[in-house]
Amino acid sequence: MAQPSELEKAISTLVNQFHGASSNNSGTLKPDEFKSLVSSQMPNMLKGIGTEQGLGEILRKMGVADGEGISFKHFWNLIQSVATNQHSILAAAQKAGCSCLLL
Amino acid sequence: MAQPSELEKAISTLVNQFHGASSNNSGTLKPDEFKSLVSSQMPNMLKGIGTEQGLGEILRKMGVADGEGISFKHFWNLIQSVATNQHSILAAAQKAGCSCLLL
Repeated sequence: MAQPSELEKAISTLVNQFHGASSNNSGTLKPDEFKSLVSSQMPNMLKGIGTEQGLGEILRKMGVADGEGISFKHFWNLIQSVATNQHSILAAAQKAGCSCLLL
Repeated sequence: MAQPSELEKAISTLVNQFHGASSNNSGTLKPDEFKSLVSSQMPNMLKGIGTEQGLGEILRKMGVADGEGISFKHFWNLIQSVATNQHSILAAAQKAGCSCLLL
């Protein structure tokens, strides 16, 4: 196997973080596990997780029904939304003449 | 701003890699730029990029029409497919009793 690239490490990090947040290897996260994951891992890119209302809103946008466990597909919906947002920020900055990188 | 987390750094890496591969800040990659990006950055997770046929197949799966530039959305379709695949590998390993991480 070739040495993992930065991009491959990034993909592995996303997958590993989801799996590492599950206490029972069930394949889904409980709401508390999800909240703990995003509170610690998305302090800058995801706002509003601190309140019940904010958490509920985020879960709805991810397609999670009431009382349902959070699957990797749900989690990925969130990652996609955040990445698309970051992409827009960077694209706008580049259009304005900044040859910058995120973070 | 809080210190970027591992997960946030991973998202930034995905976005930055796409942007860094574009020579002209047009927002899309030319086929050669895309090929160069995935050849160097996905040596383990994406196979078949080395041949014209393999590249064409991958571009079709990403939803890229003939002669079209590769957008971030197209690129994200690929990342999603690879991440979902990695997730399945890890989920199967954990079901078999391995408390492992990718890479």
